[in-house]
Amino acid sequence: MSTLAERVLNKEIRGVARLITLLENNSSEATDDMKSLFAHTGKAFIIGMTGAPGAGKSTLVDKFTAELRARELTVGIIAVDPTSPFTGGAILGDRIRMQQHSTDDGVFIRSMATRGTLGGLTASTNGVVNVMDAYGKDIVLIETVGVGQDEVEIVKTAHSTIVVTVPGLGDEIQAIKAGILEIGDLFVVNKADKEGADETARELEIMLSMSQEKLDWKPPIIKTVATKDEGIKELVDKVFEHKEYLEESKNIVDKNRIQIETHMKDVLREETIQRVFKALGGEEEFEKLIHSVAERKLDPYTAVEQILEKVLKKK
Amino acid sequence: MSTLAERVLNKEIRGVARLITLLENNSSEATDDMKSLFAHTGKAFIIGMTGAPGAGKSTLVDKFTAELRARELTVGIIAVDPTSPFTGGAILGDRIRMQQHSTDDGVFIRSMATRGTLGGLTASTNGVVNVMDAYGKDIVLIETVGVGQDEVEIVKTAHSTIVVTVPGLGDEIQAIKAGILEIGDLFVVNKADKEGADETARELEIMLSMSQEKLDWKPPIIKTVATKDEGIKELVDKVFEHKEYLEESKNIVDKNRIQIETHMKDVLREETIQRVFKALGGEEEFEKLIHSVAERKLDPYTAVEQILEKVLKKK
Repeated sequence: MSTLAERVLNKEIRGVARLITLLENNSSEATDDMKSLFAHTGKAFIIGMTGAPGAGKSTLVDKFTAELRARELTVGIIAVDPTSPFTGGAILGDRIRMQQHSTDDGVFIRSMATRGTLGGLTASTNGVVNVMDAYGKDIVLIETVGVGQDEVEIVKTAHSTIVVTVPGLGDEIQAIKAGILEIGDLFVVNKADKEGADETARELEIMLSMSQEKLDWKPPIIKTVATKDEGIKELVDKVFEHKEYLEESKNIVDKNRIQIETHMKDVLREETIQRVFKALGGEEEFEKLIHSVAERKLDPYTAVEQILEKVLKKK
Repeated sequence: MSTLAERVLNKEIRGVARLITLLENNSSEATDDMKSLFAHTGKAFIIGMTGAPGAGKSTLVDKFTAELRARELTVGIIAVDPTSPFTGGAILGDRIRMQQHSTDDGVFIRSMATRGTLGGLTASTNGVVNVMDAYGKDIVLIETVGVGQDEVEIVKTAHSTIVVTVPGLGDEIQAIKAGILEIGDLFVVNKADKEGADETARELEIMLSMSQEKLDWKPPIIKTVATKDEGIKELVDKVFEHKEYLEESKNIVDKNRIQIETHMKDVLREETIQRVFKALGGEEEFEKLIHSVAERKLDPYTAVEQILEKVLKKK
């Protein structure tokens, strides 16, 4: 019987799907496979795409992917959705994604839900990127709804980050957008056939010129109408210009280093927490401590110190 | 010289501000003070307020606070803003908050910025709640922009959570709203003088009736026009009805337990990570590992195992 890692390298789609599910569940079963796959990673070019809800990212990803396929590149897509805090399900996950690619072996699509504050999401997203990379996808595209810090963090590990906006968003949304200005390598004004597209592009240009100078790479602003397939070729061209820039300037070495550092810190965080909770000897002991704190017999900080005393080696 | 904890208990506002700053920076300097303050907590009633950008929450908080003051209650306000991922600054933090309360000793306002995936935000938010509680505020109000999981997590530790919406938000925003439906103890349709307010209230009612039944408490839907001070008294009345319900049903014991569990897990997470990174012996060793992983001589999972081997006690 083949391991999941072998099945991924043999391009067995069900092995890929299975391994990603294990990663999503932070299952330790995935670890051995991920270890042996890692040597086969580092080949894919990773693109992040983020923007406000309603910016038309799904359609854009759809057309963007079609253009990459026309250039005979294979694509892995990771769509990250905000999660309902109580059910744990992805809110937008049931939207129908890119049906035209569903029968194309050259495209692999996976929806993932953010999980809250454990840092588990970024840990598993980086792992999923590794799986798609080892699976042989030329391009890995991470799409997130740019509503929160978590979502934005994810695209920081991409080689090229595309920030998508549209004309006529409200003021408060514009303010939030300012926060993701700094992470964009490329900017898209989608729905550019709507009123105000030129103003939006101009505003973007002004805001970009005011933010810290990126010495060598000036982020281009591309107008698209994804529903009509307008501007998509130019966007793909610009992404490859950015890729070329990264390679020639050797900045890609830094980007890779940052990606690996982020990945390692996320895995470290996740593993540490899991082991500490495990070492607590199950929930029972933790429950006892909660009870004492709830009764104000103990404070949370002293309780945590007692736990760490048991778990960590002395230095 | 007095400790910060003593200064908080003596109601010295600058001591309060200083301790909160230490908490925000996850400084270990705060720990001893937090330990001694903890016995003085558990008296404040904690209210969470969340909703989409543009729902008019700031004005609502303003009027809500004025009504609480009219009832001779003191108020601590924690306003949580999404953070710019690169600068680390709060995006909306510079909006001018509630100037009418700035000279009122009975109101203490603090803006905080979310910090990303470390879980540091919730850890410090719970700490700040403790400080305001020990400082003697009757009500602690946590206001967040309900854009991400992180922000929503925060209000989960409140006794009463108010979800604010407005008429005429787009479809996609409505979809996100569905995710926070389940956390609301009370719902507000603000800007209720705008077209579609009745429809929005009716839709909410339908959605609430479809979600899991809350056996004893049926979340009320209150229409407000915060700018005109309409509906605010009713909202405050309803919050106190909810408080009474929690106390009579003893559900407040569960809410307190959940708050303490969340707080302890957050502190545990934060402390563990800090100590593990510290125990790594500074950045140098970690850098070496990153370098090996970047060169694919080592995989991230094995690297993390090596680190944990050094840091954790054997079981």
